[in-house]
Amino acid sequence: MPLSSDIQNLLFGRPLATSEERAEHIGPVAGIPIFGLDALSSAAYGPEAALTLLIPLGLLGVKYIVPVSAAILILLAIVYFSYRQTIDAYPQGGGSYTVASQNLGEGAGLLAAAALMIDYILTAAVGISAGVGALISAAPGLQPYTLEMCLAVLLILTLVNMRGVHDTGVVFMIPTYLFTGTLLIVIAFGSWHVLHSTGHPLPATPLPALPVATATISLWLLLKVFSSGCTAMTGVEAVSNGVMAFRDDTRRNAKITLTIIIVLLTALLAGIALLCRAYGIAATKPDGPGYESVLSMLTRAVMGHGWFYYLTIGSVLLVLALSANTAFADFPRLTRAIALDDYMPHVFLLRGRRLLYSWGIYVLVALTAVLLIVFRGVTDRLIPLYAIGAFLAFTLSQSGMVVHWWRKGGAPLRILVNGLGALATGITTLVVLVTKFTDGAWITALLVTIMIVGMNTVKRHYVRVDRETALDRPILPAEVTQPIVVLPVDHWSRITEKALSFALSMSNDIRCLHVQTAQEPDEICRDWEKNVAAPLRTAGKSVPQLVTLQSPFRYVLHPVVDYILAVERESTFHKVCVLVPELVVRHWWENLLHNRRADLLKVILLMRGNRRIVVINIPWYLERD
Amino acid sequence: MPLSSDIQNLLFGRPLATSEERAEHIGPVAGIPIFGLDALSSAAYGPEAALTLLIPLGLLGVKYIVPVSAAILILLAIVYFSYRQTIDAYPQGGGSYTVASQNLGEGAGLLAAAALMIDYILTAAVGISAGVGALISAAPGLQPYTLEMCLAVLLILTLVNMRGVHDTGVVFMIPTYLFTGTLLIVIAFGSWHVLHSTGHPLPATPLPALPVATATISLWLLLKVFSSGCTAMTGVEAVSNGVMAFRDDTRRNAKITLTIIIVLLTALLAGIALLCRAYGIAATKPDGPGYESVLSMLTRAVMGHGWFYYLTIGSVLLVLALSANTAFADFPRLTRAIALDDYMPHVFLLRGRRLLYSWGIYVLVALTAVLLIVFRGVTDRLIPLYAIGAFLAFTLSQSGMVVHWWRKGGAPLRILVNGLGALATGITTLVVLVTKFTDGAWITALLVTIMIVGMNTVKRHYVRVDRETALDRPILPAEVTQPIVVLPVDHWSRITEKALSFALSMSNDIRCLHVQTAQEPDEICRDWEKNVAAPLRTAGKSVPQLVTLQSPFRYVLHPVVDYILAVERESTFHKVCVLVPELVVRHWWENLLHNRRADLLKVILLMRGNRRIVVINIPWYLERD
Repeated sequence: MPLSSDIQNLLFGRPLATSEERAEHIGPVAGIPIFGLDALSSAAYGPEAALTLLIPLGLLGVKYIVPVSAAILILLAIVYFSYRQTIDAYPQGGGSYTVASQNLGEGAGLLAAAALMIDYILTAAVGISAGVGALISAAPGLQPYTLEMCLAVLLILTLVNMRGVHDTGVVFMIPTYLFTGTLLIVIAFGSWHVLHSTGHPLPATPLPALPVATATISLWLLLKVFSSGCTAMTGVEAVSNGVMAFRDDTRRNAKITLTIIIVLLTALLAGIALLCRAYGIAATKPDGPGYESVLSMLTRAVMGHGWFYYLTIGSVLLVLALSANTAFADFPRLTRAIALDDYMPHVFLLRGRRLLYSWGIYVLVALTAVLLIVFRGVTDRLIPLYAIGAFLAFTLSQSGMVVHWWRKGGAPLRILVNGLGALATGITTLVVLVTKFTDGAWITALLVTIMIVGMNTVKRHYVRVDRETALDRPILPAEVTQPIVVLPVDHWSRITEKALSFALSMSNDIRCLHVQTAQEPDEICRDWEKNVAAPLRTAGKSVPQLVTLQSPFRYVLHPVVDYILAVERESTFHKVCVLVPELVVRHWWENLLHNRRADLLKVILLMRGNRRIVVINIPWYLERD
Repeated sequence: MPLSSDIQNLLFGRPLATSEERAEHIGPVAGIPIFGLDALSSAAYGPEAALTLLIPLGLLGVKYIVPVSAAILILLAIVYFSYRQTIDAYPQGGGSYTVASQNLGEGAGLLAAAALMIDYILTAAVGISAGVGALISAAPGLQPYTLEMCLAVLLILTLVNMRGVHDTGVVFMIPTYLFTGTLLIVIAFGSWHVLHSTGHPLPATPLPALPVATATISLWLLLKVFSSGCTAMTGVEAVSNGVMAFRDDTRRNAKITLTIIIVLLTALLAGIALLCRAYGIAATKPDGPGYESVLSMLTRAVMGHGWFYYLTIGSVLLVLALSANTAFADFPRLTRAIALDDYMPHVFLLRGRRLLYSWGIYVLVALTAVLLIVFRGVTDRLIPLYAIGAFLAFTLSQSGMVVHWWRKGGAPLRILVNGLGALATGITTLVVLVTKFTDGAWITALLVTIMIVGMNTVKRHYVRVDRETALDRPILPAEVTQPIVVLPVDHWSRITEKALSFALSMSNDIRCLHVQTAQEPDEICRDWEKNVAAPLRTAGKSVPQLVTLQSPFRYVLHPVVDYILAVERESTFHKVCVLVPELVVRHWWENLLHNRRADLLKVILLMRGNRRIVVINIPWYLERD
């Protein structure tokens, strides 16, 4: 026990008392890595996902990245202002689930809940697989170990997160700021080059030739590009969901954090799009030979192939893998919120040693591992499932906020802002669903449906249990009636005597059951008068009845259970107490030397019994050495 | 339930009542296959094992097979007469274990028991692997599936044996008689050819050339040959161990069966040895190319390569694989006998649906599977472990019989017969142990030691339990003292009310435990006076005490268990009854929606509690649909 506690403390930190909770609260400096890592890191795969779809257009594709990115940034701005209002309205944490269920009803809330849970799991899976995938494109020799590396990263993230949210902020701060800082420097230098070359900069190291155009522009293609690019917006709602994690004044700190994240993300997305166009950087095929990521090409075009290149790419790899951490911070909070409304099992309400909702983390880790294993850790196969959940949640959240302000009366500007957000994200949701449906969005749609059915089933169970057990009146003092006590006996021993004495202290109606498998009567029946009946009669006590059950097929438990159920049926008013004597051994292996009939009897009685049957365990402990 | 019963009946036969036992008893015709299959089938590998070691001697080796076989047959005759006397003395079944422990003491008995158990497991493993190995030498394409085929045969044997001993006899009768019959015909025709060719018969199909001599004769080599040839004698004690399986008159039937088995085995061994010498048949290397078994060469030399050859070899293959069946018949009987003396777990005493000691079969199957898997189903690797156990048991059994007759007084002839048997088998045991030690007999020696230690540990446990629980006086009618009742409560509900009512019927000293993890008092504490205390006080009943336990680290079970143990320590005379209310759900999956604290509490109390702590389960059943 002390050793394993030490190991737990080393791995997960010492246990925290409930009263230590405030110490976990954070400011914007720690909040940006925790809640913004996912949003910021998506700058590493969002533009690339869009550019990959533009490859068939050749040079024209590189030009179209600017208007597509502009559309995404407009959407991002709308969403930003919407979520600022959510933070104002829900200082206790206004995730889409809370906002949708409170304002649009439980159905909308469940839809948001299911969408978000799937999206968080995908955030974890995509973050890990993209990070590992980028590492592999830098070091192709590691390719055969893709899945193993993904699972190893998942394990490390789990251990880090089990220590609790505060330690996590510190661990993730350096990579996040390094990633943002290096990329901003690349963008700044790149912009300077562009200005000084009147828009035609020379790359520091040669870039691959632009692909030959094989398709022409179409609205459908642009919509698909927009949908893929929108993966850059996932993770934006994390701050509003976790407002309560900030130190006071929580609202102000949360809004500052959200603003900084959005500004940084905008700068990254805009800078990448403009520089790609200026330098003429097109994506390379992700599954073909000579693949190189867009950020890698951009960085070496601007900064050359020196130490800064490796620093930048290193921080990209690290931050991509760690972006999964947003899911670790938010998924358990979400499942807790759903469990509070009885739509998820109540284990999600339990807080572990470090004030975390441990079961949320367990489930997230398990499902992420399943996703990684099923899709073999390949980002390309996961991307089509992604984003739909986030945008569905965005839409429900904004719509809910419209209703929220409407109900509060007045505030037409706030209604306008959230209404615009709802409209924009709603249209985006439809676009993403339609353009990605056959590529994998159908899986997400199916999972959402299944989860809604599951959550409704869980809710119905809790409602039913609550209805059947709730009691709104004080205790009814009943007359004390003696129970009928049933005691299975095997042979005359101290164990039997102890159980019998206990039975005598409970009732005058005692039935001792003996199962007889041979034809001649066993010793306990022959000596019953001498050992039990006579002494008790002499002492003026009631005498237990000995019931012998014949069992020609050598079954022991069946006749006992049948007798107990028969007794229960016949006696309408009495409780039936079944005494189960049990030998408690000193070492686990000694259990192998005794049949487990006592355990089996308890299980069978629990399954086949009813409320009037009570099982009483009479333990007999072997003396310790 | 009905469906699975039907499947059980189909596979294993309908259940048999204890009173149907006589119907299982058998006569010599069924007894020969059951108890003799192992002994008879060893004619297929005993001579071959001896001849394989004689290969280096070339022509001289083929000549030496006759005197070596003669020595083995003399030993067999001695053992036969010894076991006839055992059947007389032990009509209830006189296995080596029984005879040794009754006459030589428990140490010798355990030695015999361990030796026999290992030997039965090896009988099963060698029988199966030899059968499969022979099949493979006839059809080399099956070689990669050796282990799979071995395990498949083991599975078939298990199913057949689960039907019970009577059905088994019928199933195995045809192969056994076919095997013995075809081989005797081969020997008869061969002998006729030998006589009509004045000792120099011409083989019907050409035989391989005799190997070139590469070694000279030595005593050590002859002893090794003798040791290997002695594997032909394993299985001889099966009849005397299973006397009680015969129908009355059991002794006479058992002796007839034993005699027939020994006569047949002698005819086979002598015939094979003489014909090998006459035809000049040497063994071929078992792991080299062009391998052919001795019986195969002999059969086609005498009968030609026609249908009779295939019939003979087919029955050899079948009987070898099925020889393992002797172990199935005898191993469970042996473990039962050991368990009756408390040296093995008592589960080996339980008789299953078909009057078999099922656990003996389970363990035999499991250990045989382990042996087959470890040695990859190759007979050659198993042979060195074999025979030592059988001869150790023979020796102990004969020595025990000497003491038996000595104690009964008189009977000098019987003492002489068993004494000769003890001496002969004792010397053989030493020879086998020494000549095979480094080849694998050390494994057997090690296992025997481990098993003896294990059996002594089991015995000590049972003796201790018996000593601690035995009671040789009638019940002491004690004064009835009210127990202290402890009831963990979570919130006010019907479940709480039911448990509380039950507690009130048991005692006036009731402690309701509530674990508080937050700082403000929970609802049940606030409403205690209104819901519980006031109504009971009004009704003139005793009022349960509400104990609130603070738990800053949110543990629930630890404070409850600590409190219960503290109560137990303080109150020296009262029993402590812990009431555990438990919700019983309707479907298994609903268990996932409720924490299993009730189960955990029961387990922890059982582990950390003591004799004065009694656990009472108060089940609350959700209403069925």
